[in-house]
Amino acid sequence: MKRVPVVVYVALLVAVGSVSTAAAQAKPEMLVEQRQSAMTLLGKYFGPLVGMLKGTVPFDAKVAEFIDVLGKMPWDGFDASTQGQKSGALPAVFSNSAKFKEAADRLQAEAAKLVTVSKTGDEAGVKAQVGAVGKACGSCHDDFRAKE
Amino acid sequence: MKRVPVVVYVALLVAVGSVSTAAAQAKPEMLVEQRQSAMTLLGKYFGPLVGMLKGTVPFDAKVAEFIDVLGKMPWDGFDASTQGQKSGALPAVFSNSAKFKEAADRLQAEAAKLVTVSKTGDEAGVKAQVGAVGKACGSCHDDFRAKE
Repeated sequence: MKRVPVVVYVALLVAVGSVSTAAAQAKPEMLVEQRQSAMTLLGKYFGPLVGMLKGTVPFDAKVAEFIDVLGKMPWDGFDASTQGQKSGALPAVFSNSAKFKEAADRLQAEAAKLVTVSKTGDEAGVKAQVGAVGKACGSCHDDFRAKE
Repeated sequence: MKRVPVVVYVALLVAVGSVSTAAAQAKPEMLVEQRQSAMTLLGKYFGPLVGMLKGTVPFDAKVAEFIDVLGKMPWDGFDASTQGQKSGALPAVFSNSAKFKEAADRLQAEAAKLVTVSKTGDEAGVKAQVGAVGKACGSCHDDFRAKE
């Protein structure tokens, strides 16, 4: 196989822009932008799930997968270096990090269950699990996000 | 199974905030925020892939999955209603939408291949495919994104 020199990849990296090689090296403002991006997309795809419950949007199992994958993304953005950055994160994110991790883990567990149940075709089960995901979002926001 | 009233889900929807029930109903500024969020996260996870090529970050197949799933997310955000919104999107996104779709499809095809090859343990193949994903990003940015 033809090998492409690393310098080409580095050029690509620059071309693509806004790329960090690891969370630990990312600037605090970038970490905030990244975690907020994950939350924005969780909001984007939670909407259709609620629409499905209301009967306004046909159910699409792909959306459950999106929620599951996106639910893994915000957490490394809550690095201690981001304290003091402008964001909706309450100080409790950092002062009670064990409880915050528990809440983050709960979302991920509920989202994983949503993927599982969405493959069964059990409509009532899917609806209940969408509710469980929503509760995981909401209760974490209650404790760890400033009211808008 | 216990049924939860729709009103509870709607309350959850409000609690979670910033949720649209479908892309078609989302405001143009929200569509831009959502598509930019997907791009921000593609950047977040492309970085570690490049780091892997440079040998500074251990390879993690999960990252390939993230790129694959995120690569499906930006495109419905380039709705015609977003023309005139402040963003880096060039007019060609809308005036040459067939070519833009081709570029978007190319990224998704390359990202899907990255997932496949990342499961084989073929390190050279993974490196080449990371390059292919990077080229798909870069060539679309060349044609459809304003230079920063």
